[in-house]
Amino acid sequence: MTALDAARTVMERCDLLAALSSRPDGIERVYLSDEHAAVNALVGRWMRDAGLTTRQDAAGNLCGRLEGSRPGLPAVLLGSHLDTVPGAGRYDGILGVLVAVAVAGRLAETADGLPFALEVVAFADEEGARFGATLLGSRAVAGTWREEWWDLTGADGVTLRDAAVRFGLDPARIGAAARRPEELLGYLEVHIEQGPLLEEADRSLGVVTSIAGARRLLVTFTGESRHCATPWERRRDALAAAAEAVLAVERIARSAGSPATVGHLRVEPDAVNVVPGLAELSIDLRDATDDSRDATLGAVLAELDAIGARRGVAVTTVETHSAPAVACDGDLRAAIAAAIRSTGDAAPMELYSVAGHDAMAVAAIAPVGMMFVRCAGGISHHADESVRTEDVAAAIHALDAAVHTLARDAG
Amino acid sequence: MTALDAARTVMERCDLLAALSSRPDGIERVYLSDEHAAVNALVGRWMRDAGLTTRQDAAGNLCGRLEGSRPGLPAVLLGSHLDTVPGAGRYDGILGVLVAVAVAGRLAETADGLPFALEVVAFADEEGARFGATLLGSRAVAGTWREEWWDLTGADGVTLRDAAVRFGLDPARIGAAARRPEELLGYLEVHIEQGPLLEEADRSLGVVTSIAGARRLLVTFTGESRHCATPWERRRDALAAAAEAVLAVERIARSAGSPATVGHLRVEPDAVNVVPGLAELSIDLRDATDDSRDATLGAVLAELDAIGARRGVAVTTVETHSAPAVACDGDLRAAIAAAIRSTGDAAPMELYSVAGHDAMAVAAIAPVGMMFVRCAGGISHHADESVRTEDVAAAIHALDAAVHTLARDAG
Repeated sequence: MTALDAARTVMERCDLLAALSSRPDGIERVYLSDEHAAVNALVGRWMRDAGLTTRQDAAGNLCGRLEGSRPGLPAVLLGSHLDTVPGAGRYDGILGVLVAVAVAGRLAETADGLPFALEVVAFADEEGARFGATLLGSRAVAGTWREEWWDLTGADGVTLRDAAVRFGLDPARIGAAARRPEELLGYLEVHIEQGPLLEEADRSLGVVTSIAGARRLLVTFTGESRHCATPWERRRDALAAAAEAVLAVERIARSAGSPATVGHLRVEPDAVNVVPGLAELSIDLRDATDDSRDATLGAVLAELDAIGARRGVAVTTVETHSAPAVACDGDLRAAIAAAIRSTGDAAPMELYSVAGHDAMAVAAIAPVGMMFVRCAGGISHHADESVRTEDVAAAIHALDAAVHTLARDAG
Repeated sequence: MTALDAARTVMERCDLLAALSSRPDGIERVYLSDEHAAVNALVGRWMRDAGLTTRQDAAGNLCGRLEGSRPGLPAVLLGSHLDTVPGAGRYDGILGVLVAVAVAGRLAETADGLPFALEVVAFADEEGARFGATLLGSRAVAGTWREEWWDLTGADGVTLRDAAVRFGLDPARIGAAARRPEELLGYLEVHIEQGPLLEEADRSLGVVTSIAGARRLLVTFTGESRHCATPWERRRDALAAAAEAVLAVERIARSAGSPATVGHLRVEPDAVNVVPGLAELSIDLRDATDDSRDATLGAVLAELDAIGARRGVAVTTVETHSAPAVACDGDLRAAIAAAIRSTGDAAPMELYSVAGHDAMAVAAIAPVGMMFVRCAGGISHHADESVRTEDVAAAIHALDAAVHTLARDAG
C-alpha cells in the first residue's frame, strides 16, 4: 500500500471516529464515556488488522504491540490521544494515533525482525475535558498518576473513581498502567500543529524542538461593590481594574512574543446597576523557554500591581498550574528531521509547541520526539480543523522512515 | 415631642426593622416575603399609634390616612419603600417612610383641619430584588401595573402571581391599588442621598431637581473561540474587545460627567486555555437630562463600533431598559427649599438623583417632590449605610414645614 493510499484510509477513519460523539451537533468524546469505549473497540480492531496484539490498560488507554526480532524487547512507542474537547475537530490527537497504526501496519508487513518492539498507544485522556486535570492517560503510563485525582468530579457530578468503575476499570490497579523506563526506547508523536507556521512557510511537516510549559494564574481584584450612583472619583471598580489587566497581558505578552490567554473572567455581584466589587480572571502564559516565559510573567505581575495601586483595588494572584518546558530528545529530533528530508523537504522547519501534548507526560520515562503536520489556518479545537491528505501521506512516510532510522541506529 | 426626640424614635425603628430580615448575616427583605408581611404589621401599628387609619392595598403596599378638615378631601401623599436589596443598609427607603409617619403623627396632634387629607404610603417593592422589575409597589399605585409581570419568576422559582396569592392578595384585584389623579395633590418623598454631595457640601438636606432616567444596554462581542496556541495576529478575542469597551465607557462617561456602570460581564467558553469567542456586558447610563445622557451614549456606541472594527469582533447592542428623566414639580421644589431654609440652611443645595425612586412611578398621577438626607460617604445598598440623628431631625422639621407650606398655599 502506498503512503497516499494509507493516508486516504487514515482520513476515512478520522471521519468515522468523528461520528463517535456524545452530541449530534459536534464532536465530544471525553474520558471514560460510552464513546471512549466505542472508539477503543474500533481502533483496537484496526490495530489487530494491522498485525498488532492489543490490550486496554488499567487507565483505559488502548495499546497495540508488534514484537521485534525476538519477544520481549524494549519498545519504540508511537501514539497520541483519542479523547476530544467539546466542539472538537476530527484530527487533534486522533490523526497521530491513526498515522501510528498505519505505520505499524506497514512495518508488520515489511519489516523483518526490528531490533525493538513497536507499540502504538492511544491515550484515553489528554484534553482533561471531563475532570479538569489534563494528560490523565499518559500520566498513568508515565507512573505519575496522583491518588487525589480519583475524587475529581465532572460537570455530571460523577467522580473519576465512579466513572472508572462504570467503565470497567479497577482503581486499585491503576499502577499496572505504568511503564518502566527500561521497557521503552523512546516515544514518537505525530500531531497537527494547532498553529499557522507550517502553512505560512508552505511546509507539510515540522520538527518540534520543545513543548512549552504553561504557568496559570488566577487573579482576583477586590475593590468595593457600590451603588451605581457613586461618583467616579469614589469608585474602586474591580472590573475596570480587570479590564486594564486583560489589555496589559495582551500588550506585554504580545510585544515579548509569548503566547498568553485570558480565557476566564467573572465579576461580583454581577448586577446591572452595581459597580463590581470583585473581578476574577485567569492568565495562561507560555513561551519556548521557561526563562522567557517567566520574564514576561514578571512584567505582567508588575503591571497588575501598578493597576491595583492606581485604582485602590487589591490584587491577589494564585498560581494554579506550572509546568516546565519539555525539550525533545536530540537523537529523536535528528531522526525526525532526516525522515522529513526523505519526503523531499531539504531543510525541515523547526518549531516549538505552544500547546501541551502527551509527550510532556511520557518524557518522565522515555526520550520523546514530535512531528507536526500542517493544519489549515492553524485552527484547532473547532469543527473547522482540517488537514490535507497529501500531508498525512508525508507524515506516514516520514514516521515510517524515522522508525527505520532508529532501527539502523539500534542495530 | 421635639423633632430631635422624633428623630431618635425614627432611628430606633430603623434598627428594629433591620431585624426583620430573611437572613441572619445582613438585611434582606423582598416583595411578598414573610418579612414583608411582618414589616407591614409593625409599621401599620406605628401608623395607627400616630393617629392614621391604615389599610394594605391590593399590591401589598401599606397605607395610612389622616383626614383633613372634612372627610374625603384629596390627599398630600408622603412616603417611600420598605423593601430592600440583599445585603442592604437600614435607611434606603425605610427612613423616608418612618420620617413620614413621624410627621403625620405631629400633624395629627397639632394640625387642626388641614385643607387636604394626609396619607403615608409604604411601598412594598421599589428595588425589584425578587422579580427583576423595579417599582412594582408604586407602579400599582400609579395604575401602570402590567399584566405580564404576574409571570415573572424569582430565584426561588415562584412566580409573582403565586407569591401574591400566598401573601394573601388577589391578583384579579390589582387594579384596586391604583389611585386616581384627582385623589392626590402631590407626593413628597424623603430619601437618603446615596451619594456624597451633601456630605461634601456640609449640608443635612438637599432639594432634588430631577430623577435621572437610566438607559441600559446589553452588548455582545462575538469574535472567534480559539486554542490558546493561536498567534496574536490571528486572534479575534471577544474579551479583549470587551475590556476595551469597559475602559471606553469609563473614559467617555466620566469626562462627560454622566454616571455610568458596567456591572455585568461574562465570557464564553470561559475556559482557562481558550481565547474567548464571546463576551457580554451591560452598560447602565444616566444623567441629569435625557439629552446629555443620550449624547454620552452616542459617543460610547461610536467607540464600541470602532473597537469591534479594529479587532474583527462583531458588536451587537440591545436596549434592555429606557426611562425618561422625571422632573420634580416646581411648586413642591419651592416648598421643600423653603422648608430646608426654615432649618437654618439659608441656601439649600439642589441636586439631581442618579438613583431611581418611587417618585418616578408616582409622577404618572401626581406632582412629585423629593428631599435628600445626607448619608455617610455616600454609601448605600451596603451594611455601612449610615445617617446622623440630627440630620433626621432636620428632615422631620423640614417635611413638617413643607406640609404646612402646602396647607397655607391650598388654604
